[in-house]
Amino acid sequence: MIGEFELIKKLTSILGENTIGDDTAYIKIGETGLNITCDAFLEDVHFLRHYPPEAIGFKAISINVSDVVANGGKPLYGLISLMIPEDIDERFIERIYEGVKSACDFYKLRIVGGNVSRASKLGIDVFLIGEIDRFVSRAGANVGDDVVVSGTLGDSYAGFRLLTTKKDYEDYELRLIERHLRPTARIDYINHIRKYASASMDISDGLSSDLWHLAERSNVVIEIDLNKIPISRELKLYALKENLSLYDIALSGGEDYQLLFCQKKEHFNPFLDNTVIGRVIEKGKALVLVNGKELERTGFDHFKKR
Amino acid sequence: MIGEFELIKKLTSILGENTIGDDTAYIKIGETGLNITCDAFLEDVHFLRHYPPEAIGFKAISINVSDVVANGGKPLYGLISLMIPEDIDERFIERIYEGVKSACDFYKLRIVGGNVSRASKLGIDVFLIGEIDRFVSRAGANVGDDVVVSGTLGDSYAGFRLLTTKKDYEDYELRLIERHLRPTARIDYINHIRKYASASMDISDGLSSDLWHLAERSNVVIEIDLNKIPISRELKLYALKENLSLYDIALSGGEDYQLLFCQKKEHFNPFLDNTVIGRVIEKGKALVLVNGKELERTGFDHFKKR
Repeated sequence: MIGEFELIKKLTSILGENTIGDDTAYIKIGETGLNITCDAFLEDVHFLRHYPPEAIGFKAISINVSDVVANGGKPLYGLISLMIPEDIDERFIERIYEGVKSACDFYKLRIVGGNVSRASKLGIDVFLIGEIDRFVSRAGANVGDDVVVSGTLGDSYAGFRLLTTKKDYEDYELRLIERHLRPTARIDYINHIRKYASASMDISDGLSSDLWHLAERSNVVIEIDLNKIPISRELKLYALKENLSLYDIALSGGEDYQLLFCQKKEHFNPFLDNTVIGRVIEKGKALVLVNGKELERTGFDHFKKR
Repeated sequence: MIGEFELIKKLTSILGENTIGDDTAYIKIGETGLNITCDAFLEDVHFLRHYPPEAIGFKAISINVSDVVANGGKPLYGLISLMIPEDIDERFIERIYEGVKSACDFYKLRIVGGNVSRASKLGIDVFLIGEIDRFVSRAGANVGDDVVVSGTLGDSYAGFRLLTTKKDYEDYELRLIERHLRPTARIDYINHIRKYASASMDISDGLSSDLWHLAERSNVVIEIDLNKIPISRELKLYALKENLSLYDIALSGGEDYQLLFCQKKEHFNPFLDNTVIGRVIEKGKALVLVNGKELERTGFDHFKKR
């Protein structure tokens, strides 16, 4: 089987579309600009059955909010396709919806409909609509732009490893697990992105893959300073204890749902937890450099074995 | 486990919403009225792996178009969540998308994005957005209204039985199978529904269930004349040959994706293939009568065994 991204390209061409390639799709209906997205959240692919059901519901919403926000949209309404296996009890489903409800309250959006089906595995497929006045795609990066990320990277992957390898946790480990189970999409960045970003996406596959995605769509050369990548205190403790490379985790971890965007240097916002990690140095070809060498893509592809 | 409809009611109340209960959800963003829907189409639940993949793609779109049309919307844009098992080859997926593309051309809508995931079974979850100036819900039926259906009923169920019980088909049998595999949503009814219908929905679970759904949401008593239910020539041949009750099939078959709507008698449209099958005779309680007796609900519920 070919990789996920080649398959998407092929299917897009069958549909005769060229709009696919951003976190959301931009459409205009009447005078209203909208961005829409869907992301399936599936048992044994994206989560495990023994996770807290409230976290499953919360995260299913967060990953979609993150996409809407990444392009500068404000998420407003959603639908849910729920796939329910026979061996799940009703209370489990209700608890998933309690997580969905917390997420809706937190992000100030409404789930206005959906459908339920029998299925062999549990799945929750969320569809979101945002209102958007300027759609910020992955394609607009300019030479001289700063390359910026929100928050810290790698925490979610460390949390996932902790969840699947041990049982008793220290405090900092619990915080890493929390970042895997209940990531918070960066709605606090919406205004900044829509006003100032030249290109933007969320970091879901892992920073290294996502830097390449942005470089390819903008057709630019990005140079990254490894030492600038923001790492949490908790991840530092974890990497030290487990004797892991901090930068491997931060570059290829994935599922952090932080934002990756480009902007003019003068638009740096000191009121956000953002970090300049590099710069766009050339236009006309796609390349990501780190310390002068080509950065390896190590992020997630659904159809390739890691 | 409780039934599908009770579960939906429970989950809706957790979300604090009361908008769920129609084929689509109505939202307004800026000055634009929209109706949105999603319906998952899953292997071994809604289709079998040996069906023609083009038909799987076409039907996944049709069932969603049918929902948008049922409320008087014009479908414009969609997204697809595709769930792909490891044992499926790329060409099969491409052929599904060729079916999706035919449907998009036929219905004049565009699939502008989506996502693909690994999954244990094949699934295609479609989200559609329609533009709508008047949202026609299931709730507006008035005393004296005619109760109308489009097309003919029961064909899809007969087609499904044929598909799963024999291999060599006569011409009329092939036409029934075609109606199961590639149902056509009634986009030719959009203008009529949005102008004249007082209540409307599509017939996906089976006429008897769907009459009850409409009666309950409108809180009305509907009286149906069994002899008026439109039956195709092909279904008559099939029922005769198989010694089956025509009306059992037409009442409980499901998946016809015809429309069920109410309207004032004077709005009957002689240019559409529609049939008046009954009348709204009372408001204030929910009941469906056939030949003076309460009609049994025999349609589809995902969580109850038939």
